[in-house]
Amino acid sequence: MLNWTIEKIAAFLGGEIVGSRDLTISGLAKINEAKPGEITFLANPKYVKFAAETNASAIIVGKEFEASDKTVIKVQDPYLAFMTLAKEWADKDPHVDPGIHPTAVIAPDVTLGANVRIGPHVVIGKNSRIGANSILHAGVVIGDHVTIGRDCLIYPRVSIREYCRIGDRVILQNGAVIGSDGFGYAFHEGQYHKIPQTGIVTLEDDVEIGANTTIDRAALGETRIARGCKIDNLVQIAHNVQVDDHSAIAAQVGISGSTQVGKYVRIGGQAGFVGHIKIGDKAIVGAQAGVTKGIPENAFYSGYPARENMKAKREEASLARLPELLKTFRRLAARVEALESRLAEQKPHRSDSDEEHT
Amino acid sequence: MLNWTIEKIAAFLGGEIVGSRDLTISGLAKINEAKPGEITFLANPKYVKFAAETNASAIIVGKEFEASDKTVIKVQDPYLAFMTLAKEWADKDPHVDPGIHPTAVIAPDVTLGANVRIGPHVVIGKNSRIGANSILHAGVVIGDHVTIGRDCLIYPRVSIREYCRIGDRVILQNGAVIGSDGFGYAFHEGQYHKIPQTGIVTLEDDVEIGANTTIDRAALGETRIARGCKIDNLVQIAHNVQVDDHSAIAAQVGISGSTQVGKYVRIGGQAGFVGHIKIGDKAIVGAQAGVTKGIPENAFYSGYPARENMKAKREEASLARLPELLKTFRRLAARVEALESRLAEQKPHRSDSDEEHT
Amino acid sequence: MLNWTIEKIAAFLGGEIVGSRDLTISGLAKINEAKPGEITFLANPKYVKFAAETNASAIIVGKEFEASDKTVIKVQDPYLAFMTLAKEWADKDPHVDPGIHPTAVIAPDVTLGANVRIGPHVVIGKNSRIGANSILHAGVVIGDHVTIGRDCLIYPRVSIREYCRIGDRVILQNGAVIGSDGFGYAFHEGQYHKIPQTGIVTLEDDVEIGANTTIDRAALGETRIARGCKIDNLVQIAHNVQVDDHSAIAAQVGISGSTQVGKYVRIGGQAGFVGHIKIGDKAIVGAQAGVTKGIPENAFYSGYPARENMKAKREEASLARLPELLKTFRRLAARVEALESRLAEQKPHRSDSDEEHT
Repeated sequence: MLNWTIEKIAAFLGGEIVGSRDLTISGLAKINEAKPGEITFLANPKYVKFAAETNASAIIVGKEFEASDKTVIKVQDPYLAFMTLAKEWADKDPHVDPGIHPTAVIAPDVTLGANVRIGPHVVIGKNSRIGANSILHAGVVIGDHVTIGRDCLIYPRVSIREYCRIGDRVILQNGAVIGSDGFGYAFHEGQYHKIPQTGIVTLEDDVEIGANTTIDRAALGETRIARGCKIDNLVQIAHNVQVDDHSAIAAQVGISGSTQVGKYVRIGGQAGFVGHIKIGDKAIVGAQAGVTKGIPENAFYSGYPARENMKAKREEASLARLPELLKTFRRLAARVEALESRLAEQKPHRSDSDEEHT
Repeated sequence: MLNWTIEKIAAFLGGEIVGSRDLTISGLAKINEAKPGEITFLANPKYVKFAAETNASAIIVGKEFEASDKTVIKVQDPYLAFMTLAKEWADKDPHVDPGIHPTAVIAPDVTLGANVRIGPHVVIGKNSRIGANSILHAGVVIGDHVTIGRDCLIYPRVSIREYCRIGDRVILQNGAVIGSDGFGYAFHEGQYHKIPQTGIVTLEDDVEIGANTTIDRAALGETRIARGCKIDNLVQIAHNVQVDDHSAIAAQVGISGSTQVGKYVRIGGQAGFVGHIKIGDKAIVGAQAGVTKGIPENAFYSGYPARENMKAKREEASLARLPELLKTFRRLAARVEALESRLAEQKPHRSDSDEEHT
Repeated sequence: MLNWTIEKIAAFLGGEIVGSRDLTISGLAKINEAKPGEITFLANPKYVKFAAETNASAIIVGKEFEASDKTVIKVQDPYLAFMTLAKEWADKDPHVDPGIHPTAVIAPDVTLGANVRIGPHVVIGKNSRIGANSILHAGVVIGDHVTIGRDCLIYPRVSIREYCRIGDRVILQNGAVIGSDGFGYAFHEGQYHKIPQTGIVTLEDDVEIGANTTIDRAALGETRIARGCKIDNLVQIAHNVQVDDHSAIAAQVGISGSTQVGKYVRIGGQAGFVGHIKIGDKAIVGAQAGVTKGIPENAFYSGYPARENMKAKREEASLARLPELLKTFRRLAARVEALESRLAEQKPHRSDSDEEHT
């Protein structure tokens, strides 16, 4: 059971206490879920109203925050401070015993770095290398000729296929598949013929891959997820896709073959991309977007087919008015017809001028 | 080989036979797929025509069903009766031997209830508890400090991460992941920093989770699937999501962080939800809907962005008429222009009154 | 390290060399990615411009290809020739040792064909059969009473449930689940009651299933993927679905219960299908389509709800013009109103004829 005094927390965060110093904290929680004895934080001005309502015993706030009934700790960046505290208090048990579990099956020529932890029933194929301090949980299957860097965390039941390369500090959540065959066939004489998928997958340093996400090996060359990218659960990355540094991809996104995603791109959940297109740096793609062509740098695209977000929103708003427009249109057409009849009736009176002008 | 007389079936179901009693039944099937010797059922009036055409030897029908050439068994609720029979006849082999397979790796302080069955290569981490009669199939990986209730059925290759809590009679289909880290990062100085995901997942009693579905642990607190919920395959449930009692979620749905789904909600396949919204009790969400804001109780929403279903359908129908409208509009504009020209021509005749009014 | 002379390659492919014969080739690559020393191919006329720019040392081209600076090998079908070469040069290591790994758990009455390879920690249930030359990678779990044909390739962590039937030359990518329970419940007195899923899954000859794809067993009868079908990653196939010969289904598609997909159908990524509909032979379904009713043979459907592709595209194009239409419409309505006012002013001059006609 955690028990830090508010003074110990303030000292740890380098913050200033305003309010009662006679407090012991037993946990942390979000502002609207916290219970007495817990500390929370306030970073988003949208949540200021919760500062009065929260059951938390203390709040980490920004320097500019005004007095409150609660004890607060004032810091530069409340979110970062809260996160630092969360990391300090987080579960530090690696949940895998040191060394190699006797049920693991490791090919004789595998190279293991210092302090590697290998859980029960792990399999590591021939000529593979695992860097120092990396942790492989129960049931992980590593193929032949795979390289895994230092300080990696590979959760239960991940599988990594032959020849793939994993950088340092990579985290793979449960059930992720790295290096399955790409979906490549030649249709010939009434059947599909499999095209050998002879490339690999490269995950660079600091990449995290979500649970049951699948990343296909390249047909030729490599499928590459560059350093710092974060990919959520159940995402599909097809063969030869390139995702550049520090991009973030939410759950259930699908990216088709050979598409290139730039740096610092953010992609919302369930978005889909056709193959062979290029998404510019810092582009944002909305959830469920259907991306059928390239997206320029810094653009925000959404909808199906994906288009500039303001344009998509304008069209959606217009669509909501379309049923009414159809009715109004019919009435307007009737009014025009009435006008035409009226003018037709006038004709006898102006038959001469009519002829003159036609 | 199954062989029940029609009289044994009628007695078992508490139903009344109309037609020949000289029948032995060897299996059950859907009305349009049944073969001679099989029994089927008729619950949906839409399928009445199949009653004459089916190859089944007997049909379970409602009390009000009128005579047929076939032997029928009349019951209160034909679907329920059929299901009762299906359960009675279903494969009752648990497909896991009694006791603990010698290849399972179980931490010394694990608590196992009576009659637990543990298959080959199962791993159970320290301080975990498995309730009586629960069955863990081959290759299941249970982390440290996990609690699993009684009468659970956990299929091959499921993994449950540290500290998660599973109720009684829970069924987890193959490859489901319970308790993977939520997708939480703080972007700071050009990179994403992982926020520790220190919460858990709670699955309450009678929940069923589909194959390769992923349910992320909370950042803080719990991700909760309440009692009686049924979740299909390849669904993504993000951190801190709450799904209330007896809701049903079809395949490939994605629910973003902290969204709350009410009781008795039904969600169609591939629908997606943004985070931090609330879906009211008994709401229905159509397949592929993109839900961008909260939904009231009892409402039926569909489309992208999700809106009241009748409104969405009306807009879709209007859209189908839009190409024609654009053409008709151009013609109408031309007619208005013609009218304007005509009136302009009249001007010379009415120059005095024109001046008067402009 | 691969080292074939260009003459050896030409002889192997039955092609004709035009250009320098003094070349040794060390690998193959796509035309825009090839490096010196590699051979590439040119099949798509769209890429002709790359023939001059490529860094490849040689190109496999069609008979009609005109002279180039590069050495070329002329063949009937450049793509097929390249693929033949790729197969010849592909990794032929099965990555599983011959025989049965000592950690595999195989029920005593299992039948194994000649030359079967079984990797570490594989589990095979009672009364199952594995055909000759089939390879089961590490961590595969095969249930009881399963039949697997000859020359199958089953990658790590696949699970196949009880009674399912797999044909010859079937490939299952990592983490695929064959035979999980279908999503079938009867709602009765406030709760869902599970309907036993007593059917099976049949995968016929030459089927390939992608990573983490899930194929549910039938409620009754079978879920059937017919011969030659190719299914990509993270696809959901519900209970009692039928997919006919040689259809191809891209990643993250979801097909609901009892839907029938014809022969030679092609389905784009993330498309979804309601249950109980029929998709005609050779139909094409666009990516992300939401298919709510049957599709005729040879049709190309797309969008949500899915409709004939040209119609969908026309409607999407119209939608892009709708915001402008709404503005123009308001202006037109104002012009009609102006015309009406003008005619109303004329009334006094024509009061007699007006009365006459109203």
